[in-house]
Amino acid sequence: MTTSAAALDTIRFEVDRSLKEFVERQRPQLGVPEVAPLISAAEEFLAGGKRLRPAFCYWGWRGAGGDDDPALFTAAASLELLQASALVHDDVMDASDLRRGMPSAHRRFQALHEKADWHGSAEQFGEGAAILLGNLMLIWSGEMWRGSGLPPASLAAAQQVHDHMRTELMCGQYLDLLEQAHGENTFDSALRVALFKSGRYSVEQPLRLGLVLAARDRAPWIDRLCEEYGRSVGIAFQLRDDILGVFGDPAETGKPAGDDLREGKRTMLVARTLAVASPAQAEAVRGTLGDPALDAAGVDRLRQIIAETGALVACEEMIKNYLEDALTSLDHAPITEEARVALADLAVAATSRRT
Amino acid sequence: MTTSAAALDTIRFEVDRSLKEFVERQRPQLGVPEVAPLISAAEEFLAGGKRLRPAFCYWGWRGAGGDDDPALFTAAASLELLQASALVHDDVMDASDLRRGMPSAHRRFQALHEKADWHGSAEQFGEGAAILLGNLMLIWSGEMWRGSGLPPASLAAAQQVHDHMRTELMCGQYLDLLEQAHGENTFDSALRVALFKSGRYSVEQPLRLGLVLAARDRAPWIDRLCEEYGRSVGIAFQLRDDILGVFGDPAETGKPAGDDLREGKRTMLVARTLAVASPAQAEAVRGTLGDPALDAAGVDRLRQIIAETGALVACEEMIKNYLEDALTSLDHAPITEEARVALADLAVAATSRRT
Repeated sequence: MTTSAAALDTIRFEVDRSLKEFVERQRPQLGVPEVAPLISAAEEFLAGGKRLRPAFCYWGWRGAGGDDDPALFTAAASLELLQASALVHDDVMDASDLRRGMPSAHRRFQALHEKADWHGSAEQFGEGAAILLGNLMLIWSGEMWRGSGLPPASLAAAQQVHDHMRTELMCGQYLDLLEQAHGENTFDSALRVALFKSGRYSVEQPLRLGLVLAARDRAPWIDRLCEEYGRSVGIAFQLRDDILGVFGDPAETGKPAGDDLREGKRTMLVARTLAVASPAQAEAVRGTLGDPALDAAGVDRLRQIIAETGALVACEEMIKNYLEDALTSLDHAPITEEARVALADLAVAATSRRT
Repeated sequence: MTTSAAALDTIRFEVDRSLKEFVERQRPQLGVPEVAPLISAAEEFLAGGKRLRPAFCYWGWRGAGGDDDPALFTAAASLELLQASALVHDDVMDASDLRRGMPSAHRRFQALHEKADWHGSAEQFGEGAAILLGNLMLIWSGEMWRGSGLPPASLAAAQQVHDHMRTELMCGQYLDLLEQAHGENTFDSALRVALFKSGRYSVEQPLRLGLVLAARDRAPWIDRLCEEYGRSVGIAFQLRDDILGVFGDPAETGKPAGDDLREGKRTMLVARTLAVASPAQAEAVRGTLGDPALDAAGVDRLRQIIAETGALVACEEMIKNYLEDALTSLDHAPITEEARVALADLAVAATSRRT
């Protein structure tokens, strides 16, 4: 095991522990036993996960000279609450049934209603409860961040980045909705969605938060590194996500095969396919993309077209190039040697993952 | 015009101004012109409103010796962002078409989709965009609060109250969902929902925030006043809301007549009706409450039963008693004389309103 792989294990362990402790502390505060299902749902949603966002934050902190501080793990772990909130709301918005191979939050609350044979619409109850669960985790992410125990000067320096990241996340998700509704689905628009929807808040901003927390200042070299390394890895991260959404193994992704096709996601993969597709291929893609009833044979047909047009190979090539750019950008950044190695490893892990 | 009525006008003016400035500052930050509809929707949602929550916060602050500080208006105004967020999400959860006489946020975004003839489900787009709008306003409420310019010692003293209020709001809304789904609809359960869902975060917590911000300490007398005055006014406030939801004039409430009946809200009004209804009346209530297709004649029938059983008079009596308790609790609180008068006036305004 390499040093940074061992470090990633430590990060996961510490992040898991902080999240568990934080959520447990909420339980008695609430004062009414009936809200227990909200807490349990939050706990299950927060268990597991790759913890890549906390890892980028951690290595930003270490890279700018921060030492192994338990408070940093707490601050970094709060990013997982933000992400969990976004996923719960995302599943409501996309009407997705599954998340990591388990029922999505709104389906889970819907099942609670159905099993108990309560009044009214079980579906509406499930959606309402999931919206509230997402709100709770969104609120908690801010609370955990501020209450991490990091020095006030660090938190003050990073506050503007933290605020901006959260506003940007919501706007990025709105852009994604717009792109599905009336996007041109060009390379440019697909790239912009990849960057705003996920790239920036998955890689660039967590890294920036760690760097600024340790440096207590948003120095120009920090922005340069985040823009170069962060955006390259962020876009490649999202491109990998797009490929997994079409070609991923359900046993590993926990999502049905070809789910993104059924949801009509306008990704780079689709943009590249349409750009070089024959009229017949283009018609087949346009006619079935976004069809909620798309079956396994339909998914296979679309996969075949995406592969035949060379779009899959082209996207893999893009990921490779972005990764190379990212690794180059690390060469001259004034960060610690240990962080340089770890960030290189993380870039590879984030862009070659299978889940 | 009394002094405190004039003060309420000033509070409204300052709160409006702070909200407008805050949201305008977000606009250029976002960097992408397509998100403009989110900003516009936020602005329209934030315009108007009774500003009762900021007023309770303001008079808490003045009552504990705080002076006229523009930063306090900004902090108090942030409570309106929290409230707007809750209303936008509430309308999604209840599938409500109207809010203050205008289309609710999700219907507004749905109309944007329909008018432009975009792909996919306009309803799903509308709901997704409204969830994101609510999230944005939830995030902004915390950002505006922290960035108000109040002294760090004040904000630090009030932080725990602020955090708790937001968690409590989400849990209260979940309790409300549960009560509609399988509530016993007893006096006790109706009272608990009134308190958790709205009473605490509309009156008790805004008042507590103002007091603690000024005192920079959560003194026992503060908690006593908030529990006595805040809870009494809070419950009466929600009981008034329940009556308006059934008997309110649509021209004033901006909601269709009897909307709460159609949504099946399990209020004190309904609990009191069922407690003394004849078997035939009880059957009529149980059979139509929560029926989305309930027409004007059906609403009239239910209103008649609620009046005949004496439930309406009983609820008005409860409001009167809670109001008296609230006014009594002000007598011996160690607050400024000016605040005592203003809080008495506010209690009357909050519980006798027609919208």
